Amino acid sequence: MHPLDPITAEEITGVATLVKAREVGKSIHFKKIAIVEPPKRVLRSFLTEERSGKAKGIHLPRRASALYYYRGTAHLFLAKIDLDHQVVEHVEKLETHFHGQADPEEAAELRDICLNHPRVLEAVKNFGLPKELTLVCDTWPYGRDSKDNHPRLVQCYLFARGNHPGSNHYDKRLSIAKSIFAPAQVTDYTVPLPFAPVFDMASQKLIEVIHLPTGADFTVNPDVKYVPHAPKEYHHALQGQPVRQDLKPLVVHQPQGVSFTLDGYLVRWQKWRFRLGFNWREGMVLHDVTYDGRELFHRLSLSEMFVPYADPRHPYSRKSVFDVGDIGAGVAANNLALGCDCLGVIKYFSFVIADSNGNPAPRPNAVCMHEIDDGIGWKHTNIRNGVVSLVRSRVLVLQTIITVGNYEYVFMWNLDQAAGLHYKIQATGILSTHPIDEGTTVPWGTNVNIGVMAPFHQHIFSLRIDPCIDGDNNTLIEEDSVAMPFDEQNPYGIGYVTKAKPLVKSTYSDSAPYRTHKIINCSNINKSSGKPVSYAIHSPDKQMLLAHPKSWHGKRAKYGSHHFWVTAHNDGELHAAGDYTYQSTPDDGKSDLAAWVDRADNTEDTDIVVWHSISLTHNPRTEDYPVMPCDTMIVSLKPSGFFDMNPALDVPQSMQETNSSRPVKEKEIEPDRCCNLKDS
Amino acid sequence: MHPLDPITAEEITGVATLVKAREVGKSIHFKKIAIVEPPKRVLRSFLTEERSGKAKGIHLPRRASALYYYRGTAHLFLAKIDLDHQVVEHVEKLETHFHGQADPEEAAELRDICLNHPRVLEAVKNFGLPKELTLVCDTWPYGRDSKDNHPRLVQCYLFARGNHPGSNHYDKRLSIAKSIFAPAQVTDYTVPLPFAPVFDMASQKLIEVIHLPTGADFTVNPDVKYVPHAPKEYHHALQGQPVRQDLKPLVVHQPQGVSFTLDGYLVRWQKWRFRLGFNWREGMVLHDVTYDGRELFHRLSLSEMFVPYADPRHPYSRKSVFDVGDIGAGVAANNLALGCDCLGVIKYFSFVIADSNGNPAPRPNAVCMHEIDDGIGWKHTNIRNGVVSLVRSRVLVLQTIITVGNYEYVFMWNLDQAAGLHYKIQATGILSTHPIDEGTTVPWGTNVNIGVMAPFHQHIFSLRIDPCIDGDNNTLIEEDSVAMPFDEQNPYGIGYVTKAKPLVKSTYSDSAPYRTHKIINCSNINKSSGKPVSYAIHSPDKQMLLAHPKSWHGKRAKYGSHHFWVTAHNDGELHAAGDYTYQSTPDDGKSDLAAWVDRADNTEDTDIVVWHSISLTHNPRTEDYPVMPCDTMIVSLKPSGFFDMNPALDVPQSMQETNSSRPVKEKEIEPDRCCNLKDS
Repeated sequence: MHPLDPITAEEITGVATLVKAREVGKSIHFKKIAIVEPPKRVLRSFLTEERSGKAKGIHLPRRASALYYYRGTAHLFLAKIDLDHQVVEHVEKLETHFHGQADPEEAAELRDICLNHPRVLEAVKNFGLPKELTLVCDTWPYGRDSKDNHPRLVQCYLFARGNHPGSNHYDKRLSIAKSIFAPAQVTDYTVPLPFAPVFDMASQKLIEVIHLPTGADFTVNPDVKYVPHAPKEYHHALQGQPVRQDLKPLVVHQPQGVSFTLDGYLVRWQKWRFRLGFNWREGMVLHDVTYDGRELFHRLSLSEMFVPYADPRHPYSRKSVFDVGDIGAGVAANNLALGCDCLGVIKYFSFVIADSNGNPAPRPNAVCMHEIDDGIGWKHTNIRNGVVSLVRSRVLVLQTIITVGNYEYVFMWNLDQAAGLHYKIQATGILSTHPIDEGTTVPWGTNVNIGVMAPFHQHIFSLRIDPCIDGDNNTLIEEDSVAMPFDEQNPYGIGYVTKAKPLVKSTYSDSAPYRTHKIINCSNINKSSGKPVSYAIHSPDKQMLLAHPKSWHGKRAKYGSHHFWVTAHNDGELHAAGDYTYQSTPDDGKSDLAAWVDRADNTEDTDIVVWHSISLTHNPRTEDYPVMPCDTMIVSLKPSGFFDMNPALDVPQSMQETNSSRPVKEKEIEPDRCCNLKDS
Repeated sequence: MHPLDPITAEEITGVATLVKAREVGKSIHFKKIAIVEPPKRVLRSFLTEERSGKAKGIHLPRRASALYYYRGTAHLFLAKIDLDHQVVEHVEKLETHFHGQADPEEAAELRDICLNHPRVLEAVKNFGLPKELTLVCDTWPYGRDSKDNHPRLVQCYLFARGNHPGSNHYDKRLSIAKSIFAPAQVTDYTVPLPFAPVFDMASQKLIEVIHLPTGADFTVNPDVKYVPHAPKEYHHALQGQPVRQDLKPLVVHQPQGVSFTLDGYLVRWQKWRFRLGFNWREGMVLHDVTYDGRELFHRLSLSEMFVPYADPRHPYSRKSVFDVGDIGAGVAANNLALGCDCLGVIKYFSFVIADSNGNPAPRPNAVCMHEIDDGIGWKHTNIRNGVVSLVRSRVLVLQTIITVGNYEYVFMWNLDQAAGLHYKIQATGILSTHPIDEGTTVPWGTNVNIGVMAPFHQHIFSLRIDPCIDGDNNTLIEEDSVAMPFDEQNPYGIGYVTKAKPLVKSTYSDSAPYRTHKIINCSNINKSSGKPVSYAIHSPDKQMLLAHPKSWHGKRAKYGSHHFWVTAHNDGELHAAGDYTYQSTPDDGKSDLAAWVDRADNTEDTDIVVWHSISLTHNPRTEDYPVMPCDTMIVSLKPSGFFDMNPALDVPQSMQETNSSRPVKEKEIEPDRCCNLKDS
């Protein structure tokens, strides 16, 4: 077994058994059972030897950790387990302000409790919700808008949906829908209700029912009544409109098979070699990434993701989720389906995580891998003789999709043939909505239907980049393009140069239109350029966290206030907003990225970690409702003076004889055909 | 014939005949023969009626213009021709500071003259270039670095290439190469020579041979000698390395045909309807773009493109090209090849332009159109019952590729199913290089081989957006996301709002990370949001022109100094840097975008034009040589409160039964297969 292999069902069961044996008489509520990766120093040495074929027979200790409560209490424990010897090495009782993340089982329990609670039902009755509408409950991490040291709480937001019989008029489509989908009454989020119950997660007791403001200001009207309005539905059987009839199938074949190979979790493709990892929290991880035998990245992961909402009113002031730390990208991973989530010839990877009882919970098809064509790779036509040199760009896609309540996120690593890695994030799914009185607007949200307001919010991702650009001797630099002064050295006023500033102590660094961030290795000089080898991080300059730095959002997600951060590597520093984000009080001064940066460690010519905050300021469009077309962000890690020349030079010329394209036939594009295109 | 149809061969011949008949006894050197589109007021009315089926039988006058010299002189004439009546309506002799663009025929003539000129050959001999190397000449528009009113000049940059026999060791690949490519000695740009001849374009006489600086400063050493070094070759037959053997074919089929229809140049696809246009200068143009019957854009075009180099030394100070105005995107359009430039089921469009003799010059397959799969369109999983709603995103791609000397540009309009248009620009091809002494570096360029320096430069495109967002009553606004003050209206410090600033007079406007530019129509209110309908322009905030505003680059390409510009529409105002960019002196105060903006026209609730400057600051990487992997920029025009809800809601659910994907077979990804993958 490889030290970086994802946890197995047997290991989960083993850990649960060990913990339960130690905690005799206690009912254990597991929050996580996860592999603890070996210390980096040991691991790097092992991986280097492995790549040169020397690691055979070497075994690194395999270790795990378990986080758990005594069920129904606030006592949180962290256990370390030696998997090789099947012993619990150490158990620590954590300080009371640390809370475990929300888990799917307790969320489902709380939804049921909430939906059946007499006080909730009474509020529903007072609201005047018609009987034909069904209540839906979304549980949200409690967030934080005060310094109060509450027990672990959960805030519930309620919606009502219709019980549509699915009786639309498009019988053919409906019959297909019936066969592959569940019955038609599966829509949700049609009416947000104007009150929000809060529960204690441990005792599952109702704490309060908060009436929500529904006007243009902070005023709360507890007597606001349900006003009927036509819902906007996203499910095809309920849209009340025909589906398009003029979309013809597009099929991707690889008649000779795919271009990658696989050995366990070790992937090889087009000079790339890396290990795929997966865990409950970060979801998909890439380990030990090399290109053409040269080291690039030790570990690439989604460290955190924060979604703060901009509605300034209580209790929306608490609406803020760390989707990675509070929920888990691996926990929320979708079961990807052939021909739906993935098109072409697909390799699926399935994983297991632990459920709250310590049983293995499968995450089937949580990552898919396939190749796509990405247009022109490089081209030049010699205009003197018309000779064309052209290669198309083939890209290896690793995709995982997560559902976090209302939202979906698509995360992809796209590897290209020119040694570029592209981290692609797509946001889709359903907007979180607030109730609003008809005819009212607010400056912090968009009305997307009568009675339905979608508040502005941000998604701030932290991409953790643990580089090894030709080894560990790395430095992050800011490289600025700067106009030369208009003087005798620049007599025509047209010159510009680049100025590099190495970040020699751990710090943050901001993006700018004139700036590129690069990771360089000063111990290896590119023989063409005469400069240190380097990888650049290309990412658009985006608005950072809009919440005030002294607000609880600002204090809990400090990483969201700057685009780039660099730290000296320390084992265990994986999570930008700390290990325990649920209802976090970031006041212990050592547990988050900002605290690590404050150490002012040396970050020059050493083993560094670069953290990139990727921000999407999402002021909803009406077009984002009732389901949102993907909004896409791409961060590219590209060689920049790393190779001596174009690393994709040796991609073969593209040729019709293998690409088997065809011209359209005149008959198939006749204008009359537009209306006659059959749905097939 | 439709008033927007591209010019035909017959029309070109007709215009040339008319002009020649008028200019009896003169040898005519044509610079352009092009359609003059009808006045917008008339055209808009016609197009509106046409869309509602009422324009049948209406004929708009079809007119053309011709720009020409008396061959061998500096007399430039502009003629207006009535094509319906086959008469020259008007001929104007232009002021002497206006110059025609470079054309392929005169460039080829000048290359030959330069390569055979005794003074050039003498300089080559002094340089000591070995006989086995062959001279190559690139002609560059003269640019401008002084106010001198020169005749029309051309600067030549010289390179030497090897006469490789193409004898690589990969016989199989070579035999393929031989059959589809020209003989192997087709590489270029291997050694830049240290002197640059300048010629008069009219007289074709040598003006001077300028010795180039080859050190780290402005010093010129006329006695610098050739130093042999191994070239870096991009042509597959010359690379001296094997091509990759492990890339398997990927084939795109549309078994039921494509989803678009065509009626002349009228394209319909997935609720989109538009007309494809093409001309010598702008290349591909989109006219009269509607979605689901609603007007969006009257005309979308590449208005200009400026490429200034950052080497501050004479004569590189003149190295600056308006690739659209000085050359022509239509002139430079590639003949796109099936299975190479385009993959799948492809519709090709062929056009004609006029050559310098007034004959039709075909531009076959200058635009290709096809569909691609673009991943997830939208998705939501109802976590309560596991029901998945998912549509994949299909995109219609219109692609044109141009070769401008050393560089290639790929221009694409990508239309998606959610009413988004994405203008995608890719830069590829070969870096322009300067000679440099071995062991020397400069701060304004990257050494990419011994003796070869690739100077920093920028590519600044001007995308001309002539909108008709639900009609002509449009306004450009800046919409900023702004944190609320941390006060009693924002007691938790987490609120933010948007603030809109309409640009009511013609002006420029800059990008910022917190800003979105939108085109709104105040006469049409979105019934969900209660706000004016709007399209947003999403584009990363990029570094604008680095040349000093008072430099000649700054004065000639003022549009490059700001991201956005808005003007009131005026017929004939198409070209951001003016109609005559070659060696331009932008001092007439009325001929470019900045001058039009200076009029301070009303731009509120009226017929406006938005100009977006898209900048690529290209500080070359060693990886960009000897041929550059595509560098990609995307600008997206997306509905933002234009529709009442997601316009892609009705895209059918994606299903394996039509998408025909397949899982990989274990056998095809066995690790041993890596080395055994056969090149097929």
